[in-house]
Amino acid sequence: MTTTQRRVALLNDVSTYCGPDLARMLASSGHDLVVGKASPEQIAELEALGATVVNVPDGPRARSAEDFQAFVAAGVERFGRIDAAMIFSGSVVVGPFLDSTVEDLQSVMHGCVERPYHFLKAVLPIMEAQNDGQILVITSATAARPTFGAPLYSTARAAATMLAQNVAEEFVRKNIQVNVVGTNFMDFPEFLRATGGNDPAVRALIEQQVPMRRLGTVTEFAHFCLPYVDGTTRFATGQATWFAGGWA
Amino acid sequence: MTTTQRRVALLNDVSTYCGPDLARMLASSGHDLVVGKASPEQIAELEALGATVVNVPDGPRARSAEDFQAFVAAGVERFGRIDAAMIFSGSVVVGPFLDSTVEDLQSVMHGCVERPYHFLKAVLPIMEAQNDGQILVITSATAARPTFGAPLYSTARAAATMLAQNVAEEFVRKNIQVNVVGTNFMDFPEFLRATGGNDPAVRALIEQQVPMRRLGTVTEFAHFCLPYVDGTTRFATGQATWFAGGWA
Repeated sequence: MTTTQRRVALLNDVSTYCGPDLARMLASSGHDLVVGKASPEQIAELEALGATVVNVPDGPRARSAEDFQAFVAAGVERFGRIDAAMIFSGSVVVGPFLDSTVEDLQSVMHGCVERPYHFLKAVLPIMEAQNDGQILVITSATAARPTFGAPLYSTARAAATMLAQNVAEEFVRKNIQVNVVGTNFMDFPEFLRATGGNDPAVRALIEQQVPMRRLGTVTEFAHFCLPYVDGTTRFATGQATWFAGGWA
Repeated sequence: MTTTQRRVALLNDVSTYCGPDLARMLASSGHDLVVGKASPEQIAELEALGATVVNVPDGPRARSAEDFQAFVAAGVERFGRIDAAMIFSGSVVVGPFLDSTVEDLQSVMHGCVERPYHFLKAVLPIMEAQNDGQILVITSATAARPTFGAPLYSTARAAATMLAQNVAEEFVRKNIQVNVVGTNFMDFPEFLRATGGNDPAVRALIEQQVPMRRLGTVTEFAHFCLPYVDGTTRFATGQATWFAGGWA
């Protein structure tokens, strides 16, 4: 274990979504990093920005608590502390309610609720011992409104959002902030694949559902997330904010 | 009128609250400024940070629409555009509901609703013509929950919040974002004066009402506001977020 003067931020997955940009922004603003799924090129870039990087190549991917415990432990072992932690996760289940099975429900609850649950269970004891920490849980704007065609997914995202807000209240006296940002209609490979949006005609139809008539970029999303993890502002907790082009 | 390569941000009052810090952060991140109530020292500091500054010494303080129109016009005359605009305003009315008068109601509605109304009416036509703009309306976290001892104030703040959210929806197709952040328990002179918090014993009692057991600082609040006006992230609109130490 080496103590460090820089803040330490933990990001579960820097291979996609807001992960690459947020890692870059945090490295540039004085953070060392504990990350999942970084490529060798990314690690070199982040180190060039001044960060010491602990990378867990597969990220915390298993269906068990142990994977998240090991991920957080790798950071604590190297840096002695975790100042900020962000997780995004999720598995998409679509289709009408009556066509769904309880296995669908269990699957989406695992991907969208149990993963952040295990993450929170792993990182909170460290922050509680520090009496200091910031957590950002990325869910989905489908948590904010019934979502036609994705009732189970919307339900699971709402559960994860409320879980994080409950945890925020429980830890409000411990100098730990827990906030949620939920997205929809983001321009990244997994969204395009799940929706068929790689077909320009389909993408145009999707964009028609967005009040802003465009998809959000992962870079602007990283800018939006940054104040929730970079230590500059600590008086908001338990907030859930939607980044979805006016849809929620 | 001079066109400018820098973004142009308009802040109605940089004499207190998040105004001084937000002006500094925007100047540092490439903005020219249209501000109210800047001191000569502030103007010099903002210019040293690279900003061209238009200052309206009294700010838009009158009870009429004309004052806001003139304030915005001063910026447009100098820079030709307004990329971002932030307003905070408010008048505090406290006391039990049955002790209040309709004049109290009218007074708090003027201070908390009509001022942002006039502000929005003044700035939106400019942004609509540009097909581009960001607006941040600061209200109060008392908009989020009934507030014992300040029922009319809470009501007026809720009205202002919903007004901004309605405007957000109306302008979502015009590449204009309108968001709200509401605070409570902030450490600045007007709050301390209104609550008696300059007395350390009273301040301690106030802090006991805050789940985080402290007051928020204006600097951390400015950091929180920045992404809503600095142009880095444009996919959230109609959001209302509370910056109140876990109270809302």
